Amino acid sequence: MPRYKLTIEYDGAPFVGWQRQDNGPSVQAAIEEAVTAICGEHRTVHGAGRTDAGVHAMGQVAHLDLPNPIAPEKLPLAINFHVKPLPIAVLKAEAVTEDFHARFSASGRRYLYRIVNRPARLALDRGRAWFVPQRLDDQAMHAAAQELVGTHDFTSFRASYCQAKSPLRVLHRLEVRRQGDVIEVTAEGVSFLHHQVRNMVGTLRLVGEGKWTAQDIARALAARDRKAGGPTAPPEGLYLTQVRYD
Amino acid sequence: MPRYKLTIEYDGAPFVGWQRQDNGPSVQAAIEEAVTAICGEHRTVHGAGRTDAGVHAMGQVAHLDLPNPIAPEKLPLAINFHVKPLPIAVLKAEAVTEDFHARFSASGRRYLYRIVNRPARLALDRGRAWFVPQRLDDQAMHAAAQELVGTHDFTSFRASYCQAKSPLRVLHRLEVRRQGDVIEVTAEGVSFLHHQVRNMVGTLRLVGEGKWTAQDIARALAARDRKAGGPTAPPEGLYLTQVRYD
Repeated sequence: MPRYKLTIEYDGAPFVGWQRQDNGPSVQAAIEEAVTAICGEHRTVHGAGRTDAGVHAMGQVAHLDLPNPIAPEKLPLAINFHVKPLPIAVLKAEAVTEDFHARFSASGRRYLYRIVNRPARLALDRGRAWFVPQRLDDQAMHAAAQELVGTHDFTSFRASYCQAKSPLRVLHRLEVRRQGDVIEVTAEGVSFLHHQVRNMVGTLRLVGEGKWTAQDIARALAARDRKAGGPTAPPEGLYLTQVRYD
Repeated sequence: MPRYKLTIEYDGAPFVGWQRQDNGPSVQAAIEEAVTAICGEHRTVHGAGRTDAGVHAMGQVAHLDLPNPIAPEKLPLAINFHVKPLPIAVLKAEAVTEDFHARFSASGRRYLYRIVNRPARLALDRGRAWFVPQRLDDQAMHAAAQELVGTHDFTSFRASYCQAKSPLRVLHRLEVRRQGDVIEVTAEGVSFLHHQVRNMVGTLRLVGEGKWTAQDIARALAARDRKAGGPTAPPEGLYLTQVRYD
């Protein structure tokens, strides 16, 4: 059966997450139902990353096998027609070989976390960023973030119910940059543990507020204990922006 | 009575526009009601520009007089508390002298118009941009836009029901720039006629599609007839970003 790679954008707000679940609408189920409408049978859509409830994507990747070939340039339009009115858009489809797997072939993932850092509540960015009214020191956050870059046991920054076998992860880049009132945190790694980005961002906020130092971040990492890490940043600031394949 | 200048952000989607109207919720009415809750009496809030239904603002400016002085840093928090849950945020308040008028003292206004130019429908940018699936030539649009810069009779680009006395306006800048799939049009002038920015953008789209040339834009401007101009771009792509006072 011909295999296709999809690149997908979505607003995470109305979904229980990427993954199909019994307790509400998921991005995966919406795309699978669109595919059923197109090809007449159920096909599983395999995502590169299981984004949580409320988390957005600009570049989620998934693959699926279709019973019959479809021109790759027509597939996004067909799926997008059937997922209406949900805030999901397939941006691109590519024909790939059968050894391509959205999750297992991925060599890197990039996330963006957006913080709006100003006294006034959000209007245009509501549901699209984390609102933090206390002034944050973005340079201190960036410096402290470098303690987390590298290959580490990230137990202190993984959800207690994370099901990954190993807590070891490779973090290539963790960058904190301010543009006016917006602080953007970019995280790049091979893969991430459950809540890892949100837990790193929630902990870096403590540095931005002056409550923690870079040494506190290093100490939390070394503790290998979730209770040693900081709080979890909310989902609405997080975007899966890119999945890389070498 | 002490006068205050407010800088305001809002998502235009749920409103009939800036101005108080009988047929639905307006930004002006929401802020006036918040002010009534704070100071116990009705105060008129005068805006710099009457944005239409669905048009957003990152930097609308307004002024109002209060019966008693309030510390300027406390006023945004107080108004923002009372406008909840509407997507309005007062970003800043400043004490100004009684000769300051948000509309009549303004020396310049800047608008941003966002077009998302890609085949796939909008997900994250829904309600925040104009979706144009046909590939647009942004460089041709920028070149043609220069025909409109200067002091002109903009009758061809004003709403037929525009109530301004004169169709003469000074357009300082009309810039079209692409960043990936997003085309941003920046318009700067002293003031604008009703629908002027949306009519200019809707007409520039014809240039981007190759249907019109820069000469056609010049000819439309010279015709001084609304029927000679192109269609009106939708409100959801438009943002009032800045009002200047010299």
